[in-house]
Amino acid sequence: MKICTIIGARPQFIKAAAVSRAIAAHNRQTSNIEPRTLNEVILHTGQHYDDGMSAVFFRELEIPEPKYNLAIGSGAHGVQTGQMLAAIEKVLIEEKPDWVLIYGDTNSTLAGALAAAKLHVPIAHVEAGLRSFNRRMPEEINRVVADQLSTLLFCPSQVAVDNLAAEGIGGNAMVRQAHHDTYDCHPELVEGRKIEKDITYQCLKTNPLPLTSHPSPLTPHVVNVGDVMADALQFAAEKAATKAAAQYDILDRFGLKPGGYLLATLHRAENTDDPDRLGAIINALSELASQEPVILPLHPRTKKILVDNYPSLLTPSASRLTIIPPVGYFDIIALEKSARMLLTDSGGMQKEAYWLKVPCITLRDETEWVETVEAGWNVLTGADDKKIINAAQNFTPPQEHPPLYGDGQAAEKILDVLCQKA
Amino acid sequence: MKICTIIGARPQFIKAAAVSRAIAAHNRQTSNIEPRTLNEVILHTGQHYDDGMSAVFFRELEIPEPKYNLAIGSGAHGVQTGQMLAAIEKVLIEEKPDWVLIYGDTNSTLAGALAAAKLHVPIAHVEAGLRSFNRRMPEEINRVVADQLSTLLFCPSQVAVDNLAAEGIGGNAMVRQAHHDTYDCHPELVEGRKIEKDITYQCLKTNPLPLTSHPSPLTPHVVNVGDVMADALQFAAEKAATKAAAQYDILDRFGLKPGGYLLATLHRAENTDDPDRLGAIINALSELASQEPVILPLHPRTKKILVDNYPSLLTPSASRLTIIPPVGYFDIIALEKSARMLLTDSGGMQKEAYWLKVPCITLRDETEWVETVEAGWNVLTGADDKKIINAAQNFTPPQEHPPLYGDGQAAEKILDVLCQKA
Repeated sequence: MKICTIIGARPQFIKAAAVSRAIAAHNRQTSNIEPRTLNEVILHTGQHYDDGMSAVFFRELEIPEPKYNLAIGSGAHGVQTGQMLAAIEKVLIEEKPDWVLIYGDTNSTLAGALAAAKLHVPIAHVEAGLRSFNRRMPEEINRVVADQLSTLLFCPSQVAVDNLAAEGIGGNAMVRQAHHDTYDCHPELVEGRKIEKDITYQCLKTNPLPLTSHPSPLTPHVVNVGDVMADALQFAAEKAATKAAAQYDILDRFGLKPGGYLLATLHRAENTDDPDRLGAIINALSELASQEPVILPLHPRTKKILVDNYPSLLTPSASRLTIIPPVGYFDIIALEKSARMLLTDSGGMQKEAYWLKVPCITLRDETEWVETVEAGWNVLTGADDKKIINAAQNFTPPQEHPPLYGDGQAAEKILDVLCQKA
Repeated sequence: MKICTIIGARPQFIKAAAVSRAIAAHNRQTSNIEPRTLNEVILHTGQHYDDGMSAVFFRELEIPEPKYNLAIGSGAHGVQTGQMLAAIEKVLIEEKPDWVLIYGDTNSTLAGALAAAKLHVPIAHVEAGLRSFNRRMPEEINRVVADQLSTLLFCPSQVAVDNLAAEGIGGNAMVRQAHHDTYDCHPELVEGRKIEKDITYQCLKTNPLPLTSHPSPLTPHVVNVGDVMADALQFAAEKAATKAAAQYDILDRFGLKPGGYLLATLHRAENTDDPDRLGAIINALSELASQEPVILPLHPRTKKILVDNYPSLLTPSASRLTIIPPVGYFDIIALEKSARMLLTDSGGMQKEAYWLKVPCITLRDETEWVETVEAGWNVLTGADDKKIINAAQNFTPPQEHPPLYGDGQAAEKILDVLCQKA
C-alpha cells in the first residue's frame, strides 16, 4: 500500500514523525513482505523551509528524507495554496498513491486535501475535528475543508468527534436523494410505470423520496485514536533518557533555573499581524519579565515586527525578556518541562504543557483544546495584558490531572485503521 | 456596497445575469444614491472562454462587461484552481469588496470561496445546498467547500436547506467550546479562582463546558430564495415575445418540428471521460435517432472524443443524430421548449425541462434536483443504454405539475437579504 504523506510546517513534521516511525516498525514486523508493507512517500511543500523551522526536525525526529520538496516558501494564502495545489496534483498523478495522509490545519493540509479529492485519492486526516469556531483564523478554514474532503478522520478526542458529527461527518445525517439504482432496488415503493420487469423509471410520484444516509463509497469514517503529539512526547522522553544530559543543556545556555522562568511563544497571524494584540501581549510579557526571566523563541519575521514597533520594550536593560531564534523539538520540550508556566498561542504547546504538568496561559480568545481548560490546567486570556499578568502571577491548576488525548499509541492505531481499510 | 461577482463558466453567466439585472433595477429605483447603490464588480476567471461558451452569454443576457478577465482557460483541476486562487486573491486585495458573490459549483466557485475566506471577505453563495452525494464529482467537492465557507447561503429549494442543515450549516449544531469571554460573562458558572472582580480564569474545573452554538460573527445564514434560473427563463420568455420570431428560427435551421425530436446534452466528466459510459449513452442516442431526429449540441472537446472513438455511429447516413456546436441561451431554450423529450446530464436543463413541461431523462446515476424526480417529470437512467432507450420510448410524466424552485423573483430576494446584511 502506498501512502503519500503531505507536510510542510513545523508541527506537521512532529506529528508525521510519529507515524513514520510506526510505519518503519510495522514494516520491520511484517518483514517488508508485500502486500502488508507500507510504502510511504513524503512530500514536503516547503511551507517552512529554513533549518530552524524544518531541517532540524527531520534530523532530530528521524523522519525519512522527503522524496519531493516543492520549495514553495512563504506567500499570500491564495498564492501559496495555489502553487501547492498545482504541484501536489502533479506528484499525485505521478505517484498514484492509495492514500494521501495530511496533518493538522496549514495551507499544506488544505492544498493536499483539494488536490487528492479531485483525483479521487482517499484522504486520511490526522488531527481531524478540531475547531475554534473562529472563521477568521486561516487554520479554521483549512481544517474545515480538509475534514469535509477526508475519508478517514483521525481525531485526538471525543470533542473532535462531536465537532465532526455536528457537521454531518461520521454521523448519520439523513438526507433526501435520488439515485437511479434506488428505483430498481425497491420495487415495493413503485407507484408509477414499470416498463420492463427489471426497470422502473419512476417510483414516488407524489411522496418525497425516502430519507437515507449517503451511500458514497467515500463515506467518511471517524476514529478517536488520541493525539500523535503524545506519541512524539514519549519519543522525546526516551531519547532524553538514552542520550547524554549535556545535549539538553538549553537551560544552562540561557541561565535558566527549573521552575524559575516563564516560556512564551507567539506565531498566529491573529496575534502577530494585529498591532493592538501584539502590543498588549508584549506589554504583559515585559511587565512579567521585571519579576522573573521570560524566554521567547520567535520566528525572525515576528521578531522583526517587534523590534520595529516596540524597541523600548526590548532593550536588554529594560527587562529579562529574552528573544531567541526558534529551537528544535527536544530543546522546546526541555524548555517547556522546566518552565514555571507557559504562555502561548500554539495548539501543540497547550497539550504538551498539560502532559508535562506545567500550567498554561493561552494567548487567544478561544481554543480547540477545550479539555485542558475544563481540566483547569489551561486558561484563556486573549490578548488582554491585565488578564495575562494576573494569570501568570496567580493562576494555580488543581491537583487533579486526568489523562487526556490518548495513550501515546495514536500512530499505531492510525496504521491499524489504514491497513484494515486497504 | 461593493459586490465582487466571480464567474467563469456558462451556467454561471446565466445565473449571474439575473442578479446583475436585478442590481441594475435596484440602482435605478434608488436613483443611484449612496449608500444604497450596489456597485457590482464582475470578475470572469476565463474558465469558459470561447465565443460559444462565454461571449454569446454576455451579449444575449446583457451582463455588464467584466472589469477583470483572468483568462485562465482549461487545465487539470489543481492547476486551474491554483491559478484562479492566486489571481482572485490579488483582485480582492485591490478591490476590497464588502461581499463576494459566487455561483454554483465550478472551480471558479471553489477558488473564489477560498480566496475570499482567507481575506475575511464574507461570501454569498447562490445555488447553495445542492448535493448529489457523489464525492467523485468535482462539482460536489466544489459546492461542499463553497457552502462551508459561505456566510450567506441562497438555496433554490427546501431540500437544499435541509442538506445544509445536515452539515451543520444554518442549523443549531451544539458544540463544546472555550472562549475567554465565556468566563467573564458567566460568573454563576465559576468554580475556580476569581483573581479580580471582573476577571475569571477558570470556571469549569470538572464539568464539561456548556454546549453552545457557535458565536462567530460569520455565522452562516441560509435562505430559500428559489432558483435564479427561473428568473433567467422568464427573461428569455419576455425577450422572445418582444423580438421578431425570425431570431428564434433554430428549429427551422435544423429542420426540426415542435414535439418531433429529442434534444440531448452531455458535458460532465463522469460521462465524457468514461469510455464505457460515453459509449453506452451514444449507443442509446444512435438507436433513438433511427426513430426520430436527435439533436446534440456538444463542446468541441467532447465531439472530438466521440468522433475518434465512435466513427461508425456518427456517419450522417447511419442515423439522424445531429451534432451541433454549443448554442446560446435563447437558442437552447427554444430547442428545449419544442423537444418531445430532453436527455441530459446538466443540472440546469433538468429544471428548465420541468418549467417548460418537457419530460426529462437524466443521464446520471443521481441528481441534485430531487424534486423533479419526485414530481414524476424527471427519470434517472444513469448511462444504461437499455434504460435510456426504454425511457425515451415509454416515459410519460403525470398530469400534476406542482410549482418548484421559486417564483422567478430569486434575484430580488437575494439583493434584499444582501442589503439587510450590509
